[in-house]
Amino acid sequence: MSEIIKDLVQKNDSKIVMIVLDGLGGLPVNGTTEMELANTPNLDSLAWKSATGLHIPVEFGITPGSGPGHLGIFGYNPVQWQIGRGVLEALGLGMELRSTDVAMRCNYSTVRDGLVVDRRAGRIPTEESKKLTQKLQSEIKQIDDAEVIFAPGMEHRFAVVLRFPEELPPGSDRVNDTDPQKEGKAPIKPVGENENSQKVASIAEKLVQKASEILKSEEKANYILLRGISQVPSIPSFNEQFGLRALAIAVYPMYRGLARLIGMDTPEIEGDIREELEFLRKNYDSYDFFFVHIKKTDSYGEDGNFEAKAKKLEEFDSFVPEILELKPDVLIITGDHSTPCILKSHSWHPVPVLIHSPYVLGGLSTAFTERECAKGELGVFKAYHILPLALANAGRLKKFGA
Amino acid sequence: MSEIIKDLVQKNDSKIVMIVLDGLGGLPVNGTTEMELANTPNLDSLAWKSATGLHIPVEFGITPGSGPGHLGIFGYNPVQWQIGRGVLEALGLGMELRSTDVAMRCNYSTVRDGLVVDRRAGRIPTEESKKLTQKLQSEIKQIDDAEVIFAPGMEHRFAVVLRFPEELPPGSDRVNDTDPQKEGKAPIKPVGENENSQKVASIAEKLVQKASEILKSEEKANYILLRGISQVPSIPSFNEQFGLRALAIAVYPMYRGLARLIGMDTPEIEGDIREELEFLRKNYDSYDFFFVHIKKTDSYGEDGNFEAKAKKLEEFDSFVPEILELKPDVLIITGDHSTPCILKSHSWHPVPVLIHSPYVLGGLSTAFTERECAKGELGVFKAYHILPLALANAGRLKKFGA
Repeated sequence: MSEIIKDLVQKNDSKIVMIVLDGLGGLPVNGTTEMELANTPNLDSLAWKSATGLHIPVEFGITPGSGPGHLGIFGYNPVQWQIGRGVLEALGLGMELRSTDVAMRCNYSTVRDGLVVDRRAGRIPTEESKKLTQKLQSEIKQIDDAEVIFAPGMEHRFAVVLRFPEELPPGSDRVNDTDPQKEGKAPIKPVGENENSQKVASIAEKLVQKASEILKSEEKANYILLRGISQVPSIPSFNEQFGLRALAIAVYPMYRGLARLIGMDTPEIEGDIREELEFLRKNYDSYDFFFVHIKKTDSYGEDGNFEAKAKKLEEFDSFVPEILELKPDVLIITGDHSTPCILKSHSWHPVPVLIHSPYVLGGLSTAFTERECAKGELGVFKAYHILPLALANAGRLKKFGA
Repeated sequence: MSEIIKDLVQKNDSKIVMIVLDGLGGLPVNGTTEMELANTPNLDSLAWKSATGLHIPVEFGITPGSGPGHLGIFGYNPVQWQIGRGVLEALGLGMELRSTDVAMRCNYSTVRDGLVVDRRAGRIPTEESKKLTQKLQSEIKQIDDAEVIFAPGMEHRFAVVLRFPEELPPGSDRVNDTDPQKEGKAPIKPVGENENSQKVASIAEKLVQKASEILKSEEKANYILLRGISQVPSIPSFNEQFGLRALAIAVYPMYRGLARLIGMDTPEIEGDIREELEFLRKNYDSYDFFFVHIKKTDSYGEDGNFEAKAKKLEEFDSFVPEILELKPDVLIITGDHSTPCILKSHSWHPVPVLIHSPYVLGGLSTAFTERECAKGELGVFKAYHILPLALANAGRLKKFGA
């Protein structure tokens, strides 16, 4: 599929803005969803004039993590391009990953007499953990041909990246977690499950040995457990695939990191919606595509804070006229997945989406809500079709066949 | 997909009529689409009693040419079965292609001192071009083991078919265009990009040499450029695939040609809707499936003539009672793609479709328009599902599994 698109891409001066309200979709409480509760006159009016629908991030019934959720709306089939847990953790800690990297999530833990007695080392304070991680970094810089890079996280968590001189062959990350998952068991030895993964397994084992030697006098954090060992996937770049110079505008490191995986520019920025849109305006002339990530809708969903999620949508609604003043050729407003407050977690529910351009039917959704978008001209469809639709509306796709 | 269908097909005496209003779908002007503007009481009443929906000819965002547009509604996945530009050109000029053929689009051009100075030979008059093509045909009948068949076109255009004694292996048509695309450059030598395509490349080179020798004293048309060199795809026949003896009723050669590619009977006919329906009635007893192609909706769309496109729909509407009098077991009315007047070209927009039979829900679309079909029981779905739905409604598909 993506091969067809790639061959049809043509360039022009159009601008495409994609606003991602993280965890946008919800479910009813007393008959009303978060989106239905929110008073969003600008979004409702825009929905009426847009192509609307519900997108399925991965597959019917599948609840996506942030990685697959974003890959889908970036136009990649998230089943085809999977992002390992170690890679996502490293991105979340702001590490800049390269295609030659293998990343892993790590825990400080307490081991006595060869058995894990506390998998989280008593959840040591973040400040203490940070110091230990700095100590590890100062003493472990290289193992075999891999540069070893540490990044501190919250409490007992941190991440490690092994940076190799060149890209490893596929399957080189097929190494088990060393975390036994239960206290009272011995840590598991990292073993490569195929020929290609022997190298990473061997370095992982040395990493555990060296770190434990350095940490041995610590009362709690005297051992490290490794999980989610994963190579950085070699995803074709967004520019290569869709011919778009893309800017990611996201406050949280993980979303910038996901965008960076496909080659978007990802400058660090701070603030919230106002600052993100200010940044959009400043950089509007320099790019073709803008991914604007708004985090708090998801955070309030995870908290189960129905009112706060609705309020955040109202706040975003007040900025819609400013976005329209930029006159993007195509404006997409959607989420990467649903986060219904009643579930307090990501969910499998299709996500409302609107695509605004001069070339839509419109007139089918009276509001920007889950139920009104279900009536739209796009139907219920896979998230990775959004990007081709945006390209088509922007005049960036040639005809297929004669 | 088609493999499942093929195994489930059973025959009976049912009749399926598929009316294709070329370029049917449109977009709003002052809030109203071409279909919404047209006063079509018969179609609207039929839509209310039919299964309705919007079909996607190829994929979300993809604008189909006529080839993929028709393959889709004929039940073939147009991404799987691609029709080359040379083949489509030859079909459009009324050439009868065989599976052993390689076709190409050709231009008369002007070359001086080895450089193309006019890619279209001053758009020489069609009559003059026709004479030159006859001259080429009289002097070039065979090159190596290929019979060479010329067909004149409009102005500087013509087509050539190389007819081989047997089907060539796949990839034999991987030969570049010789058209340099810009004036002031030398024509490009045809080169085969793999082992299988060396034969066609060599014949193409000899064709250019021989033609240029014959044309050398012409003032303008002294050289030929080749484009879109392509094998006739070996698509499984419609009868083999769906068990239907099919008649194509189309005035324009290209659509008859497309139907002939999958083995439909394709007698030449003239006229417009009235004559086509007369022809349908006359042949109604002799076939199971009837493809009736109505061209002008697309032509008016391409012209951007909103009123004329709507009028053509009204004209077609007036014939709907006559079609219903035939009492087809299944009646399908749709288009091969959308051609919105505001775009003056084919587009990616989903196409309204209605399937009328005694075995539908109905009651969901109050009119035969884009927006009313969006509310239908078929949803937004791929074009190549229409044929299996028609077969099911005609009682021509057995149960799948026990």
